[in-house]
Amino acid sequence: MNNQQDIGNILYKWASDLFPINRSITGQGVRDTLLYLQNIVPELEIKSIPSGTRVFDWNIPKEWNISDAYIIDPKGNKIAEFKKNNLHIMGYSVPIDRTISFNELNKHLYSLKELPTAIPYVTSYYKEDWGFCLSQNERDALTDGDYHVFIDSTIEMGVLNYGELILPGLSQKEILISTYICHPSMANNELSGPVVTLGLINWLKDVNNRKYTYRFVFIPETIGSITYISINYNLLKERVLGGFVVTCVGDDNNYSLLESKFQDSIFDKIGKHVLKHHTNNKYKTYSFLKRGSDERQYSSVGVDLPIISLMRSKYYEYDEYHTSLDNMEYISPNGLSGGYTIHRKAIEILENNETYKINTICEPQLGKRGLYPLQSTKDTQEQVELMMNIIAYSDGEMDLLSIADKVDGDFFICKTIADKLINSSLMVKVNG
Amino acid sequence: MNNQQDIGNILYKWASDLFPINRSITGQGVRDTLLYLQNIVPELEIKSIPSGTRVFDWNIPKEWNISDAYIIDPKGNKIAEFKKNNLHIMGYSVPIDRTISFNELNKHLYSLKELPTAIPYVTSYYKEDWGFCLSQNERDALTDGDYHVFIDSTIEMGVLNYGELILPGLSQKEILISTYICHPSMANNELSGPVVTLGLINWLKDVNNRKYTYRFVFIPETIGSITYISINYNLLKERVLGGFVVTCVGDDNNYSLLESKFQDSIFDKIGKHVLKHHTNNKYKTYSFLKRGSDERQYSSVGVDLPIISLMRSKYYEYDEYHTSLDNMEYISPNGLSGGYTIHRKAIEILENNETYKINTICEPQLGKRGLYPLQSTKDTQEQVELMMNIIAYSDGEMDLLSIADKVDGDFFICKTIADKLINSSLMVKVNG
Amino acid sequence: MNNQQDIGNILYKWASDLFPINRSITGQGVRDTLLYLQNIVPELEIKSIPSGTRVFDWNIPKEWNISDAYIIDPKGNKIAEFKKNNLHIMGYSVPIDRTISFNELNKHLYSLKELPTAIPYVTSYYKEDWGFCLSQNERDALTDGDYHVFIDSTIEMGVLNYGELILPGLSQKEILISTYICHPSMANNELSGPVVTLGLINWLKDVNNRKYTYRFVFIPETIGSITYISINYNLLKERVLGGFVVTCVGDDNNYSLLESKFQDSIFDKIGKHVLKHHTNNKYKTYSFLKRGSDERQYSSVGVDLPIISLMRSKYYEYDEYHTSLDNMEYISPNGLSGGYTIHRKAIEILENNETYKINTICEPQLGKRGLYPLQSTKDTQEQVELMMNIIAYSDGEMDLLSIADKVDGDFFICKTIADKLINSSLMVKVNG
Repeated sequence: MNNQQDIGNILYKWASDLFPINRSITGQGVRDTLLYLQNIVPELEIKSIPSGTRVFDWNIPKEWNISDAYIIDPKGNKIAEFKKNNLHIMGYSVPIDRTISFNELNKHLYSLKELPTAIPYVTSYYKEDWGFCLSQNERDALTDGDYHVFIDSTIEMGVLNYGELILPGLSQKEILISTYICHPSMANNELSGPVVTLGLINWLKDVNNRKYTYRFVFIPETIGSITYISINYNLLKERVLGGFVVTCVGDDNNYSLLESKFQDSIFDKIGKHVLKHHTNNKYKTYSFLKRGSDERQYSSVGVDLPIISLMRSKYYEYDEYHTSLDNMEYISPNGLSGGYTIHRKAIEILENNETYKINTICEPQLGKRGLYPLQSTKDTQEQVELMMNIIAYSDGEMDLLSIADKVDGDFFICKTIADKLINSSLMVKVNG
Repeated sequence: MNNQQDIGNILYKWASDLFPINRSITGQGVRDTLLYLQNIVPELEIKSIPSGTRVFDWNIPKEWNISDAYIIDPKGNKIAEFKKNNLHIMGYSVPIDRTISFNELNKHLYSLKELPTAIPYVTSYYKEDWGFCLSQNERDALTDGDYHVFIDSTIEMGVLNYGELILPGLSQKEILISTYICHPSMANNELSGPVVTLGLINWLKDVNNRKYTYRFVFIPETIGSITYISINYNLLKERVLGGFVVTCVGDDNNYSLLESKFQDSIFDKIGKHVLKHHTNNKYKTYSFLKRGSDERQYSSVGVDLPIISLMRSKYYEYDEYHTSLDNMEYISPNGLSGGYTIHRKAIEILENNETYKINTICEPQLGKRGLYPLQSTKDTQEQVELMMNIIAYSDGEMDLLSIADKVDGDFFICKTIADKLINSSLMVKVNG
Repeated sequence: MNNQQDIGNILYKWASDLFPINRSITGQGVRDTLLYLQNIVPELEIKSIPSGTRVFDWNIPKEWNISDAYIIDPKGNKIAEFKKNNLHIMGYSVPIDRTISFNELNKHLYSLKELPTAIPYVTSYYKEDWGFCLSQNERDALTDGDYHVFIDSTIEMGVLNYGELILPGLSQKEILISTYICHPSMANNELSGPVVTLGLINWLKDVNNRKYTYRFVFIPETIGSITYISINYNLLKERVLGGFVVTCVGDDNNYSLLESKFQDSIFDKIGKHVLKHHTNNKYKTYSFLKRGSDERQYSSVGVDLPIISLMRSKYYEYDEYHTSLDNMEYISPNGLSGGYTIHRKAIEILENNETYKINTICEPQLGKRGLYPLQSTKDTQEQVELMMNIIAYSDGEMDLLSIADKVDGDFFICKTIADKLINSSLMVKVNG
């Protein structure tokens, strides 16, 4: 993966392949999704946890599978066909094969008045029920009469699946990168998450001498993270410093940050830094009160990991969210590439952030070391100023990211300058 | 006392009864006022401290009593009659019975150019003098000639009185609620204070299992609180957590908060919370630099109690302040009821604020406990969100008030939700 | 020096005398400048450090002296004459006596397109070169042809000079006041600095019982402070609390503050207090990121002194900066007097700031001590309020400057009131 456009195209291709699969929190769709991912990164391990397993306050639910579903209207037309769009069927619908009145059917229909062409996404994981979702327009056209409803599904003891991949680093300290794989055919939320995460793995596995160990997790949302934490609790508490829930990283709209519960963790600082410099300070910040994904579990009392999300259009905050309009047209190669880039930059800052100590007293003489420009232009002047500022604040206490924020410089430019100072023996790493 | 309107009417009735009494920092008016209060709450103890007693840097002054006073103008008309309005006589006026010229009289007259119909409130506690207060209009009508001034007062060794009432609670830790009873016929400042305090006692004495002990004090301002602190210094330092000076709680204008000297005490937090939610964030905040009542003593160096005032129109800040226009028309049943309610809410928060710890790891499953609404509406959604937030922050460190402020929820709604979580055994009180 | 106008005139006179001298970081001009200063304050010691001496990362450069320099144009006219304006010659120009083409000459000319009448100030201390500076207008008038360039300068082993003066105080703890003497004929930057510093010495040496010891330093910028720190490192680290770089204190424009690296040091607090009250809150604040003088060395990692600058128009921030337009017309007696006053006030606050403890419990009775005005006016009311506030916050922890800032009062007015309270035995100094 070489340039931004290539990366965007590859991520978009993966999303297109995964789009038609009918995912839920359990079932064949999750497995098919994980197998597709494993085909690209064979190091991905696929795990299975049996239905009924106790995970903290929850039990792993039975496995749901579905092969077909539709309604036959009074005129004999098939409508709300599962095979045309898997959003037509409420997730975890129980099987049914019955003729009922319109009035009875109507209690099981879901649509959106405010988005009349969209099929809404609805589930009922923990209450036995069945339902069909359709556009308001389609619903409005229904007439009185008898309807045949048919859902060929099973809800049986089975497993909950998730994927896990560890990229070891020089330190046992870990960064958690978690994304979810439980939504049927929707693109920004959620397919953008797994494909950008896959892209990050593909890049990061070739990075030499990783400082940190990276723990990538592909799980069904909520029950998946609860399960994962239940199985790995001690390990997470001992090793994981915090991390990212990767979601909603595929569209071309503005960027946004969901802060961690702790607000000022290193992940918050990195997230703000990356978005500020990547977007010229044009991004939205949401507090942890606006959370809505697996940080709810990873940051819960007793787990307490600082987790942020770096997003494009945040879940809940765009009209197409959780409808059939969040489709492959809503996301784009360019949108995905941006989502990938901000995460990659965040990881690069994690990997490259160091604390330095200048080893002269008073300012060093840059000129005799070739660090002072012979010709003074506005650009060279800014570079010198930045170098002098890095020298002024590199006291062995303040890390480079904090210095970059202090002097309002981009981390990567500051890093280049710090490297020059290291190479000129003017500065040393502290505990690095 | 059942509803807001009833309470307002009762408080207004008490204020009307007390209004005509001629109070000062000592004297029969103070005793009559305390006896009236004692008639309603017999538990009130009336204390007497002899004139001349040393209280820190001060001495209890002699007792002032007055039976009649007036001026007879050159035409033989009685003006500035004490019996018509006790504000006509400067507080602590020495006796006099003499005919003097207009010029000499004029040096002893007080009026307000900017409020020509108002009689100002003037005192001279510590400098022997006499004076008459009258409206600017009345003063302007005076002509040259001889005036007979008559004040039938006594300034003699006696006592300073105050009232004290302790409502014991489960803890010996105390909340101080102090109000003052030294102003003649004025309504917002000061009668609203004692009657609202009386209302609070009437309510609080019937509250079962009070967490804190409540110390109610009815004193003359300044010399009274100095006296009270002098007598109770060790006890106040050992037991009292802080509290309220109840004053200016009777009119219908905006609410206001006087912050404590410490600005971020639990009383400040509670005061801000109550006023924010009671007024939809429409209230004024004054810093301790704008103080003007007994918090000056209770928060002085060496006493150092955090004391706030929750007010309607603050002293100094309304035109009618310290004049005959601060009368029974300036306050209202509705105004008093509001002043009562904000104090009651503040006390209810003190009594009900707890620190909780959620006892699941990861979010609990609300549905199986009937805590998740079957039908999702905007209202139920907000309730669920609030519950999830209380769960997220109940870490055994953050108290419920801080959580309510964090999530921008009303304390009492949060408390209801916390109770549900307690009842579902999802949460436990910490040190509670 | 009695009043503001006298002081301004004296400072202006000194600046006028010093203006024509050709200063650089070394050479006879520096010595002549120091001798002039020593003539006024004979306690000033003049130090000499040999060329080639190692000072941290630097070496003291050779000494530069120049007796004459000019260009003869093709028509035989002398231009860019050193004797007319010493800014015409680039500082540290090597000697030359040669006829060259216009094209070759042009590479050694410096002018300012945006200020066509100004001669810019240019130096080349550490790279051997020569150059002439002239106005853009003068440069534009040059024609093709042969030019004779003549610079009669020497760059030889010699010394770097600086001046030092210690005014001892009751404490060995020191305040550093540093100013620089390396610029040729420019007035705001830099001559205002040394003359205001001289004025401060003249005043401060007659102040009895100075609390602190004052260390005044007159040095060439950058290499001078590096040299000074190199020689006095241990002493500075042990004794100096921080201080001031005095610069740009001569013009009539707005005041400005350069914050210390530490932002909230006592020097920052004093600087802000003085400028706020001296300017009615109309001054500019620059962060340490906008530094540009010897605080770069004094606050460097390992030296770490809190240093501020109290200025009028800050270096870099006015058009005339580092040009021939920063001349004796750019500054004024009034401007210098203002620069002097803010420094004097800052030092007076340092000398007079104390921590007090009130020794009554509850408010003292001011009346019996004559501290309460008999007639209450707006002015006396404000005085009483200020006194009550000083009483309320003098808890033995908060110093008077912090109290003044808290109550938004001027330090010197607060000091007068504190003295009254001390004299009435109501307050004692803590550790003072």
